[in-house]
Amino acid sequence: MNYPNKIKKCNNSFITYGNRGMELEELLNQTNLFYLEKNIALIYKKPTDIGIVKVDYSNKQQIVDAYFKTSSTLDYNGIYKGKYIEFDAKATQNRTSFPLKNIHDHQINHLKKVIEHNGIVFLIIKMNASYFLFPGKTLISFLEKNTRKSIPYDFIKENSYFIKEQIDPPLDYLKGIDQIYFGGE
Amino acid sequence: MNYPNKIKKCNNSFITYGNRGMELEELLNQTNLFYLEKNIALIYKKPTDIGIVKVDYSNKQQIVDAYFKTSSTLDYNGIYKGKYIEFDAKATQNRTSFPLKNIHDHQINHLKKVIEHNGIVFLIIKMNASYFLFPGKTLISFLEKNTRKSIPYDFIKENSYFIKEQIDPPLDYLKGIDQIYFGGE
Repeated sequence: MNYPNKIKKCNNSFITYGNRGMELEELLNQTNLFYLEKNIALIYKKPTDIGIVKVDYSNKQQIVDAYFKTSSTLDYNGIYKGKYIEFDAKATQNRTSFPLKNIHDHQINHLKKVIEHNGIVFLIIKMNASYFLFPGKTLISFLEKNTRKSIPYDFIKENSYFIKEQIDPPLDYLKGIDQIYFGGE
Repeated sequence: MNYPNKIKKCNNSFITYGNRGMELEELLNQTNLFYLEKNIALIYKKPTDIGIVKVDYSNKQQIVDAYFKTSSTLDYNGIYKGKYIEFDAKATQNRTSFPLKNIHDHQINHLKKVIEHNGIVFLIIKMNASYFLFPGKTLISFLEKNTRKSIPYDFIKENSYFIKEQIDPPLDYLKGIDQIYFGGE
């Protein structure tokens, strides 16, 4: 995966402003780059799934007609401490509850399968200017017990690892993985 | 990930012709779909990494200008028996040796890192109408000992699990993984 130079170059200015305005995805890209460089974990964002309709081979294989596909899997995956990891990053402007329309049914099915195959799966939720690592198992058990179309903010707060935003890496979510899945190693 | 219906629909006709003419990628997609449906493993091909230059929002988010990026990781990854798996599929017309220009330097680096992090990494090579599961560790040790720009066919044959082409799944490469990494379970 190519980490565009601009992300690295922007680093200092973002830090100056305390990451203000940085999108969740950019914070996670920087975090994953940190993990990669320190050889802590290998975690990549999957490329956006695109259906290609037409390529202009006369012009350096320029794609001139394509469309966005919906994905059944989650956006990030990789390996940490020998374990398979997969997660999605979701931000909501809603202050009281997290709307479940943010997660497709086929993603829920996939999430269940990853758990079944003994992988680590979770969401990173940005809500009320805070970052939460919300375990996949908790999401599944919530869905089994509720018919609600959203998860109350208090439930997320009580059942997540709170990811403190910091300088480097910006969102050290693997600390939460250590605590939840590796017994606080 | 969406498995296009046409692949499933084509299934019977391909079987009639004994998979003749089916591309390696299609055989692997069918195999991975088989593993998914039988709940044996979760293995997906990553979407092609594309840089989007221009989107026409007036027409259902049609992408009207984009280009292919090179990837640093391998094309397929997922989870099998709780372990992280990653591999690439390579076909060559060369009958005597596998040209190493097929694998980028950053992919070699990535491959080393996956091994370091205790993941399972390999190539599936189609050569001389046969399919070989060539372990990542063997590739790395070959590169360390040789300055050649290709791997002799005999070396691949002697150091790979031979994947027998069959009907369903077309390329049961996880049998090779069982043998090499799980002690023949």
